[in-house]
Amino acid sequence: MLELKVKRIDIEVGGFEIILNEEDAKELGLHPQDRVKVARRGLITTAIVNISESMIKRGEIGMFIEISEKMNVKNGDTVKIAPTMRPMSVDYIKKKIYGEKLTKDEIYEIIKDIVDDNLSTIELASYVTAIQIRGMDMDETEWMTKAMVDTGETIDFEYTVFDVHSIGGVPGNKYAPIAVPIAAAAGLKIPKTSSRAISSAAGTADLMEVLTNVRLSVNDIRRIVDEVGATLTWGGAVNLAPADDKIVHVEYPLGIDPHSQVLASVMAKKKAVGANFMVLDIPMGPETKVPDEKTARKYAMDFIELGERLGITLEAAVTYGGQPIGRAIGPALEAREAMQALEGRRVSHSLIEKATDIAGMLLELGNIAERGEGKDMAKDILKSGKAREKFLEIINAQGSRGIEKSEDVPIGKYKADIHSPEEGYISIVSNKALVKIARTAGAPKDKGAGIILNKKKSEKTDKGEVLYTIYADSKAKLDEAVKIAKMLKPLKIEGMLLERIPSYKA
Amino acid sequence: MLELKVKRIDIEVGGFEIILNEEDAKELGLHPQDRVKVARRGLITTAIVNISESMIKRGEIGMFIEISEKMNVKNGDTVKIAPTMRPMSVDYIKKKIYGEKLTKDEIYEIIKDIVDDNLSTIELASYVTAIQIRGMDMDETEWMTKAMVDTGETIDFEYTVFDVHSIGGVPGNKYAPIAVPIAAAAGLKIPKTSSRAISSAAGTADLMEVLTNVRLSVNDIRRIVDEVGATLTWGGAVNLAPADDKIVHVEYPLGIDPHSQVLASVMAKKKAVGANFMVLDIPMGPETKVPDEKTARKYAMDFIELGERLGITLEAAVTYGGQPIGRAIGPALEAREAMQALEGRRVSHSLIEKATDIAGMLLELGNIAERGEGKDMAKDILKSGKAREKFLEIINAQGSRGIEKSEDVPIGKYKADIHSPEEGYISIVSNKALVKIARTAGAPKDKGAGIILNKKKSEKTDKGEVLYTIYADSKAKLDEAVKIAKMLKPLKIEGMLLERIPSYKA
Repeated sequence: MLELKVKRIDIEVGGFEIILNEEDAKELGLHPQDRVKVARRGLITTAIVNISESMIKRGEIGMFIEISEKMNVKNGDTVKIAPTMRPMSVDYIKKKIYGEKLTKDEIYEIIKDIVDDNLSTIELASYVTAIQIRGMDMDETEWMTKAMVDTGETIDFEYTVFDVHSIGGVPGNKYAPIAVPIAAAAGLKIPKTSSRAISSAAGTADLMEVLTNVRLSVNDIRRIVDEVGATLTWGGAVNLAPADDKIVHVEYPLGIDPHSQVLASVMAKKKAVGANFMVLDIPMGPETKVPDEKTARKYAMDFIELGERLGITLEAAVTYGGQPIGRAIGPALEAREAMQALEGRRVSHSLIEKATDIAGMLLELGNIAERGEGKDMAKDILKSGKAREKFLEIINAQGSRGIEKSEDVPIGKYKADIHSPEEGYISIVSNKALVKIARTAGAPKDKGAGIILNKKKSEKTDKGEVLYTIYADSKAKLDEAVKIAKMLKPLKIEGMLLERIPSYKA
Repeated sequence: MLELKVKRIDIEVGGFEIILNEEDAKELGLHPQDRVKVARRGLITTAIVNISESMIKRGEIGMFIEISEKMNVKNGDTVKIAPTMRPMSVDYIKKKIYGEKLTKDEIYEIIKDIVDDNLSTIELASYVTAIQIRGMDMDETEWMTKAMVDTGETIDFEYTVFDVHSIGGVPGNKYAPIAVPIAAAAGLKIPKTSSRAISSAAGTADLMEVLTNVRLSVNDIRRIVDEVGATLTWGGAVNLAPADDKIVHVEYPLGIDPHSQVLASVMAKKKAVGANFMVLDIPMGPETKVPDEKTARKYAMDFIELGERLGITLEAAVTYGGQPIGRAIGPALEAREAMQALEGRRVSHSLIEKATDIAGMLLELGNIAERGEGKDMAKDILKSGKAREKFLEIINAQGSRGIEKSEDVPIGKYKADIHSPEEGYISIVSNKALVKIARTAGAPKDKGAGIILNKKKSEKTDKGEVLYTIYADSKAKLDEAVKIAKMLKPLKIEGMLLERIPSYKA
């Protein structure tokens, strides 16, 4: 035990970390990344050691924001520290490194330590790398999912609950704001939570935020689902399966996403809201996460099996992801297009078909429609205006921004048309290039930024016709996006003339 | 490009890291652990992004010590930042995660980025985990070794150079201060560098530091080897294969040590001093790193093959590691015992045998002794006093602390004898328990702390006889060590009476 004087360092480091003077650390036999117990007035917590030669004097302890707040210390307070063992879960991570199967208790211990910030960045990175390489079998995945549920909040509804989730990968995928109100209008209960964009141009949460408040508490979600049947909120605002965010924090910079972790993350959030039935959307196509049917089937089968183990009946919809859904990309433009669809206006077939396909599956799962009749019923509900009514009820219950009609949605002030350089047919639409352009224009942060596609795959264009329009909230970003657009050429045009045969003989 | 005002944060974080305000980061689309280019007056460097809500205001950039010093900035200076790609080597790490073999160029790129601090802690932890699981073949190991050599300093000698290395794992392993002077006395050139203790009670560098200065530059090492034939210094003080230290920084907290990394780390340091011939000591036995002959042979063969690829002729000595070498454990006690051996005093056979075995192999490799006659020659040189003379020359050349005789070595002021509770034979000596006791007594930092074994394996003890003596520099640590010793009982005694047969018939 060494008594040290607190020096607060007001930086968030994403965990409980302290800094010791080099000599004090040597005295205690501590190395960087070792753990210590920090104690003050009966409050004891574990922290990771950093070492400084100069900033922290002997007898001082540098305490970053997270631990300062947990221990409620100010400059000059004293705390006691003593070396402590690394948590057992580091041994379990090593077990996975050596290729062994983990037990239920071991997985619970790892997830608990992740949630409690007991694992260092190094250990967490090693864990994610190990499960990427070694994988987890369905038992381990089930235990991990349950551990993620049990270490967070859950919502208990007294009725049967439905949910829907897309594994993402296709731009403009605004099926949820259409399918969810259709299902809710038919009487199903759907506490839908969504994510914000990470690498895409708009997550469903970004889109919904244009129209309403998406930061709801567990109690608000419960109340609104009781009253109007559904929510469309941001999952990150609620403490459902909190281990997920901490794992993503490490996966993101490595650009890896272990299959078993994807399964556990998605299903933990569904289990936490008490879903009994769900539809999983698997967009398939080049430039999505699922390039072919074999991969799609593997995804679907694993999700279905995990669903069974969790008591969730899951049906998967493999959907066409070869080009954007609908014609709008970017938060406000997508919100507007979703509202247009709800209002019965003429929008892209792809959007209406996909949204009613998924809503139809929900209606069949809920025994509201007979097998094979869900889609027609969904279309009828959409046409009747009841889905639009339900959607307005949902956004009003969450805290409306006063937008009642698609025309009211504020979109980017600045816009630029991109014209076709030649006559021909659109042969390729690059999802990735469109996302890059929309992000350069400011999406998802600049809500008005994005793209409206005037031409989609197989459509004919004349020379000089508008291929697509870029929107932005600032002139500078618009210019930048136009520059990138001219470089990336997201729409490839195949001329009518496929080969020219010269008049002379070679 | 965003221009920001510098706020220095005087903490070493072990790499180039900055902190941005949350809003500025969003503006640039940056997430934690993303990379930015930081530019000022033509000086451009890459840094890892951290994000703060409160400590760093909009328009400010928090700069930790390493990057502040590199960019030579003070508070209030301005720098420009722009997002930049993650280095290509992250893709190569992912390639290894997916189980593919890396090319020479890819491995060079990874090692270069490690040395230049271009990889974040997360990426480095993922790299080490991936090579622990996937392994590297001999080509990859060779390239990694060469990359580690090429990214650091090297020493060029104009003559044939010898070296010796132990993979460790057995306490009291003080063969080097005896074998090196024997070989040097016979005319071999040995620029021996050693490590400090990480988890043991004393590294050779810790032991030598009791007697002399071990922090030598490349130029000092060259000069001393020219003049007296050998050095015994701390490898950590020289910039030989600097990637190694950065990799160890991550391996240590995970407690993993990938086989190919061990090979590369050892051999890179040998190659950097230009070794032509070397002997590798592989201590084998329970509680060492090498439990059985099969493992020992695998180690030896891999080292020999890597040596061949590097132009180093390597012979391996598998040595008995079932109990400590000699009777002393701890820096000063080991230094004293090594000097006693050099002075021709009666010390444990195990120490004399091991040191002359290894020295003999060096003499044979150097063609000074015929095959099979090296050991006898080594013993003669030791007996003649020439090795002692050479040892004194070495420690004087490095910067003597004025210790010329074993009696002059200052050992722990406080000591406690541990007595045998019964009569019998020593059946088991636990290396790990002895190290734990010596470390509790203060080793390796308290140089005088450690253990002298009075009894070793198979020796007879009477009840009440001294089994071993614990030394310490402080009374408190001695008491703690005695407490631990009584709990761990590192020497097991088997009584003469193995079974008692009762007088009555059962």
